[in-house]
Amino acid sequence: MNFHTTILGSSAAMPAFGRNQTSQVVNHHDRLFLLDCGEGTQLQFQKYKIRSSKIGHIFISHLHGDHWFGLAGLLCSFGMSDRTEPLHLFAPAATLEILTLQFKYSHTVLQYPVLFQPIEDFFKGEPTPENPILWEDNDLQIKAIPMKHSLPCWGFSFEEKPQQRKIIKEKLPPNLPYPLLHDLKNGKNIEWNNETIANESLTTEGAKPKKYVFCSDTVYNEAMIHALAGADLLYHEATYMEDKTIAAQDRMHSTAAQAASIAHQSQCKKLLIGHFSARYRELDGLLQEAQAVFPATQLATEGESFEV
Amino acid sequence: MNFHTTILGSSAAMPAFGRNQTSQVVNHHDRLFLLDCGEGTQLQFQKYKIRSSKIGHIFISHLHGDHWFGLAGLLCSFGMSDRTEPLHLFAPAATLEILTLQFKYSHTVLQYPVLFQPIEDFFKGEPTPENPILWEDNDLQIKAIPMKHSLPCWGFSFEEKPQQRKIIKEKLPPNLPYPLLHDLKNGKNIEWNNETIANESLTTEGAKPKKYVFCSDTVYNEAMIHALAGADLLYHEATYMEDKTIAAQDRMHSTAAQAASIAHQSQCKKLLIGHFSARYRELDGLLQEAQAVFPATQLATEGESFEV
Repeated sequence: MNFHTTILGSSAAMPAFGRNQTSQVVNHHDRLFLLDCGEGTQLQFQKYKIRSSKIGHIFISHLHGDHWFGLAGLLCSFGMSDRTEPLHLFAPAATLEILTLQFKYSHTVLQYPVLFQPIEDFFKGEPTPENPILWEDNDLQIKAIPMKHSLPCWGFSFEEKPQQRKIIKEKLPPNLPYPLLHDLKNGKNIEWNNETIANESLTTEGAKPKKYVFCSDTVYNEAMIHALAGADLLYHEATYMEDKTIAAQDRMHSTAAQAASIAHQSQCKKLLIGHFSARYRELDGLLQEAQAVFPATQLATEGESFEV
Repeated sequence: MNFHTTILGSSAAMPAFGRNQTSQVVNHHDRLFLLDCGEGTQLQFQKYKIRSSKIGHIFISHLHGDHWFGLAGLLCSFGMSDRTEPLHLFAPAATLEILTLQFKYSHTVLQYPVLFQPIEDFFKGEPTPENPILWEDNDLQIKAIPMKHSLPCWGFSFEEKPQQRKIIKEKLPPNLPYPLLHDLKNGKNIEWNNETIANESLTTEGAKPKKYVFCSDTVYNEAMIHALAGADLLYHEATYMEDKTIAAQDRMHSTAAQAASIAHQSQCKKLLIGHFSARYRELDGLLQEAQAVFPATQLATEGESFEV
């Protein structure tokens, strides 16, 4: 099954050494979800030949410019490409106010619906939901995870729903009607030819549901470990090396080792680090410091895709 | 003398085929002026190794996103690069309102002064100035030229002031005091050893003042010919080829042949065409149509510099 993320930008606040600002595309069974949209994201789509028309949902983690200054241009380009499909936009509430002003003065009218949902709205109600579901369909749900940063900021957790059981074709009785097949896939025993057939005799367990978590800008924060628990792939920002731990704390960012510690404590299977400070031309040092704590770490490299 | 423009973006509304949206840097004696700032302009600075810290003045022609969606990010990056020198920003009045909102929600405080001057303000007064001077120093003045487009839009004319006369060193009487040298440079005759010496006997004409005009988005508009007259280099948008003349008119843009006709009628010496529609992968057709009308035409190619 196709479930991966493609990195479009791996740089922190400033682009540097050919690295763009934060953006990535999650592909789940050929449905594309855009996470953050730093300046130049639409240029990266062209560079890496990603069909941006297949993006149905955009999630913006917070309103620091390096995470969303490419959004207005992307929305305009969608319009000029004759997009008609609705676009779901999950972003901080103020996003709409800024876009509206930009489009007012440029006389821009998008010819497709933008269904805007402020992320703050999902945290209302009693009791306050901790990791509310922003969106879901039959296969997948996407939750918001509060980050601890200098602006309101959220990460996004992509969680597959439990998969149907797999039928062992060679063991199936002939001519079994479709509704009974459906029951088998859903784990039920069936009645056939006046016999009860145990589900386990005709099926095996379905594929294990996968989980991908994108942790945008955040200081080291153990409070979110339970929300990341068991992720098959965790993206966590790693702006600095360990000698900048105090700077990281001050600026509400993380070091590579801190990202790795979070991956380790939340028992994730793989870690992807990104959001690299412009002070680092070479990234080997960041990778080594993370791998010392959590060996299954990779660098978020632009244009590369990482399986969940 | 160093007077040239470097193209950072040559694409029209949408980036295409590796071409970025409109932006260029005018270098006048190592002083840098940025004209428009499409998305990704700060990435282009890095790509083409242009020292953006030397930019003292930014001019934004109008508020279509492809001409200024890179500005907010550039201003932020200047701040993060510890800029302290003031930045002069000449742009439509609404620019400030939008930037202020963006910076409010991102808690951005720029650590250097931005001296914002709405271009509209220069067109006030009685009689209304036709091509007001936005900025000048001893060597150069920069004027605004109204374009005819679907939004309020201006071009920018860079006009060198008359140059001082050049002294013929070998003809100078010995020990001539500095104030008399100054008079000679300014074209005056001098009194020396009880003799009147004619200026022409000791000097030759100074370098001819150069003129560069940047015509951002505009429909074919003969009304601006007098403002372009005699430019050493004219940049004129050329969004379409001739078979799209009606579309050009409808969308308030120009064809390559129309740009060339304006260059011809205004007796410019060289023409640079840009703002190419995303419909054209190859640009030879646009160049040929322009050269048929005005042979001294070149394509605005990204990363290339063009002498004024």
